[in-house]
Amino acid sequence: MAFKEHLEAVVGSVDGSVACSVMGFDGIAVETLQPDARAEDVAALDLQAALVEYGNILGQLKNTAQTLKTGAVAELSVNSEKVLTIMRMVNNDYFVVLALLPDGNYGKGRYALRIAAPKLARELA
Amino acid sequence: MAFKEHLEAVVGSVDGSVACSVMGFDGIAVETLQPDARAEDVAALDLQAALVEYGNILGQLKNTAQTLKTGAVAELSVNSEKVLTIMRMVNNDYFVVLALLPDGNYGKGRYALRIAAPKLARELA
Repeated sequence: MAFKEHLEAVVGSVDGSVACSVMGFDGIAVETLQPDARAEDVAALDLQAALVEYGNILGQLKNTAQTLKTGAVAELSVNSEKVLTIMRMVNNDYFVVLALLPDGNYGKGRYALRIAAPKLARELA
Repeated sequence: MAFKEHLEAVVGSVDGSVACSVMGFDGIAVETLQPDARAEDVAALDLQAALVEYGNILGQLKNTAQTLKTGAVAELSVNSEKVLTIMRMVNNDYFVVLALLPDGNYGKGRYALRIAAPKLARELA
């Protein structure tokens, strides 16, 4: 199991990363990486609560995708004043989430998760 | 009221646009623009149902933002196999949503909504 290396590859390549996590739809993180840099900006965010809430929403969308005709949901992004979050489905039970500061590299973040998701899926198989 | 012009500016500048709408959090669209191009790809999507569902989720996030410490939600994006959707808050009661084909210009779409939202807010004031 090399979850950590895959998460390190994500946060190492995306400027402004503050947390990267593989989470189950039960809201429990399998592995979380929180780069130290700019930690003081992040401490006040209570990221864990936000990620659990957003994960809930992704789970909800996963279920409604069956009734909608727009196909399976692959990615969800919730961008607030203080933090950008990008979530990508890994498999039916897990997703990967990256939290960025508002001036972080959002496009690179989406790309890094797209690359990481299938690798994480193989680890979880 | 010049909602339509603002929506036309969005779909005219973003490749792959299939619908752009100003909607209330009650799920009712104030104005919708559906460019004819590639309409056959889109007819099967039942976009209206998806947009109402996604709007619900944005409304839910708007309400939980008060308990989370990540600040007000400005943007939500739900990307599925067949359609990318970007939503941006206009004011407390309305949001603007852009639906794109999967190969549409996502970055340009986010930019166009960021520019359009304050203009739409002025129309709604």
